[in-house]
Amino acid sequence: MADEALFQFLHSELIQYIYKSGANGETENGKNITKLEAMGFRVGQGLIERFTKETPRFKDELDVMKFICKDFWTCLFKKQIDNLRTNHQGIYVLQDNSFRLLSQLSAGKQYLEHAPKYLAFTCGLVRGGLSDLGLKSVVTAEVAGMPACKFQVMIQKA
Amino acid sequence: MADEALFQFLHSELIQYIYKSGANGETENGKNITKLEAMGFRVGQGLIERFTKETPRFKDELDVMKFICKDFWTCLFKKQIDNLRTNHQGIYVLQDNSFRLLSQLSAGKQYLEHAPKYLAFTCGLVRGGLSDLGLKSVVTAEVAGMPACKFQVMIQKA
Repeated sequence: MADEALFQFLHSELIQYIYKSGANGETENGKNITKLEAMGFRVGQGLIERFTKETPRFKDELDVMKFICKDFWTCLFKKQIDNLRTNHQGIYVLQDNSFRLLSQLSAGKQYLEHAPKYLAFTCGLVRGGLSDLGLKSVVTAEVAGMPACKFQVMIQKA
Repeated sequence: MADEALFQFLHSELIQYIYKSGANGETENGKNITKLEAMGFRVGQGLIERFTKETPRFKDELDVMKFICKDFWTCLFKKQIDNLRTNHQGIYVLQDNSFRLLSQLSAGKQYLEHAPKYLAFTCGLVRGGLSDLGLKSVVTAEVAGMPACKFQVMIQKA
């Protein structure tokens, strides 16, 4: 329990620090999101490298995505992705019905505008993980009602 | 395994970010160390709060220190402190013979100067944890030979 707490606390300290150290305003918000995403990317790369050392080679793209939804997510958030959908053309939607890094925030609608900063790092984690597994992607996230959230992964064909 | 890796990676991203976003030089280095320590402090407080929810009350100061060396350390670093010494007058020395956050660094002497930035966050974690348990303290760290390291805790009497 205290284990995931460590990640959660460190993650919110990081967000606070990045937002405090930069200026405010719309442009700055965009830059901060980019910074968080980039940090997530590097952490995701590192994690996947260690994590897949002894994993057999993946069959295909879908196999990689299932690994992200199950093993990777469990390692990060102690739960699996609740729902994975795909159009079989490189777009995947990963739904987490109670996303850990949002569960600290109140469920009120007034906090919805703060959600993106709590999602950026994780978007980066996924993108970094996939990149290390040979898949270039664009990852975005949206919150419908907290703490549920959807990550959309668009695989970029080489 | 990937679990601790998450903390380790995030921790080094944090250090890099703080050092990159600030200026360089001696004064700045001091400021960066202070920032890392302060972040550790808040995370330590939060962790102890969750972690001791169901723990029986501690008998005395030594009992608290043992808790830090065993339970708290195991939660953070997947191992216990290897040696705890005290002068029974409020000074405690916690020795970790292979401190996780240093084990990424090479053992060469040329890296010794970088050690403080890898220890500041953890000094804060300990100070924050103790503070939440009612003990005001000053926590410093020193590295003799990597990756072994000693944390010195001086309890401040009220």
